[in-house]
Amino acid sequence: MTVNPTACVLIIGNEILSGRTQDGNLNYLARKLGEAGIPVREARVVPDVPEEIISAVNACRAKYTYVFTTGGIGPTHDDITAENVAKAFGVPLERNAVAMQILTDYYAAQGTTVNEARARMANAPVGARLLENPVSKAPGFALGNVFVLPGVPKIMQAIFDLLLPTLSGGPPVVMKTITCQLREGDLAADLAAIQEQFPQIDIGSYPNMRSGNFITQLVCKGSDAAAVQAACDAVADMVRKMGGKPEFE
Amino acid sequence: MTVNPTACVLIIGNEILSGRTQDGNLNYLARKLGEAGIPVREARVVPDVPEEIISAVNACRAKYTYVFTTGGIGPTHDDITAENVAKAFGVPLERNAVAMQILTDYYAAQGTTVNEARARMANAPVGARLLENPVSKAPGFALGNVFVLPGVPKIMQAIFDLLLPTLSGGPPVVMKTITCQLREGDLAADLAAIQEQFPQIDIGSYPNMRSGNFITQLVCKGSDAAAVQAACDAVADMVRKMGGKPEFE
Repeated sequence: MTVNPTACVLIIGNEILSGRTQDGNLNYLARKLGEAGIPVREARVVPDVPEEIISAVNACRAKYTYVFTTGGIGPTHDDITAENVAKAFGVPLERNAVAMQILTDYYAAQGTTVNEARARMANAPVGARLLENPVSKAPGFALGNVFVLPGVPKIMQAIFDLLLPTLSGGPPVVMKTITCQLREGDLAADLAAIQEQFPQIDIGSYPNMRSGNFITQLVCKGSDAAAVQAACDAVADMVRKMGGKPEFE
Repeated sequence: MTVNPTACVLIIGNEILSGRTQDGNLNYLARKLGEAGIPVREARVVPDVPEEIISAVNACRAKYTYVFTTGGIGPTHDDITAENVAKAFGVPLERNAVAMQILTDYYAAQGTTVNEARARMANAPVGARLLENPVSKAPGFALGNVFVLPGVPKIMQAIFDLLLPTLSGGPPVVMKTITCQLREGDLAADLAAIQEQFPQIDIGSYPNMRSGNFITQLVCKGSDAAAVQAACDAVADMVRKMGGKPEFE
């Protein structure tokens, strides 16, 4: 078990930065990794620009236990993740023979061939380990602590779900949420006191609206389940003392 | 008019990194800023950790024309954006008198007072300009090229919508999308040739699934509307020549 492993998600794609596409991959990865005891500590969205990808990959792989990239590993000209991950590591890009065989078999079964564009999906840095893609076969890959996944959510999730059990996680992060109709400004002082009482627990307060009313969601999070429960009990008591009705998720 | 202004979005909040909350603010800001000719070139999500906020603010404000932060300006202990933006700029945090008056009037109208927790929402770095909040009054602020917005989408959007016309944008980014049922691997070579023909246009290819079928969305984007249209026409011709039926968005 890696002690306190951490993760970073690197979303590669102009379509997220233009607002054309709403990213959902960070949320998926964050939840699954948190449950596996590998909390996501940072995420970045970078454009399809070689130097931006290279510098983000290198900054993040030096800082976190695991880096997960999404996007940019398809067959078109704007898919430039593999070559730039190779550059970030200073290793050559090669046509991976195993990946090429997988693609050849897949497209043969569909009565077509691997043209030059599709063959680009078999490109990987020298030394990369392939990541199985049970949906559309073109594999992701891992190099060092960097895991390169596609951007299409269904395919990304399928590859990641096979990958996750192979990663070394810490104790799972437990998260409990209490919703109440008190306003943040009224409970802030008491909540801060509870946070001080439970320094190992991360207590967050999130205001929102529900049916036109202000609500506040109070989240206790940590890897010590008993301490999370104790903090959560203290928060619930606080809400009741202030005349609120705690709703538990 | 600023020549080729750029933007960066800095999302501050543990709730996004834990997967508890699906961020929608980046998408909103990216679309609106792009339309205003201020393309978003990078986004980062950082936790509620002082040194992470400070280093991200400083890295991004040095690199981009505008930086927009979201989250962490409420009244609770986990709202630490204002103090860390002040630290990033090396200026003191102060209780802004104008902001304090706004809060005092707002809470007085609701028959309550500004307690110490709520008064934290009037804290801003020395030299900050306040950003009007037409929803819940507690203002955002700007310091240098950094614009500090709340995380609650409705309130963030209201402040941003008032702010946007005051920013100096470039020519608006025009984006046209063609959807077809061709597969990326079949059109990649021809698409790359069109991209070479229109170097000033950013042509993206995005595979997806629709009702169980593979589809590909081809996006032409740029600030020269005539060139975007010409590239889009070339893409549509390509789709037709390959036996596909271009659908225009």
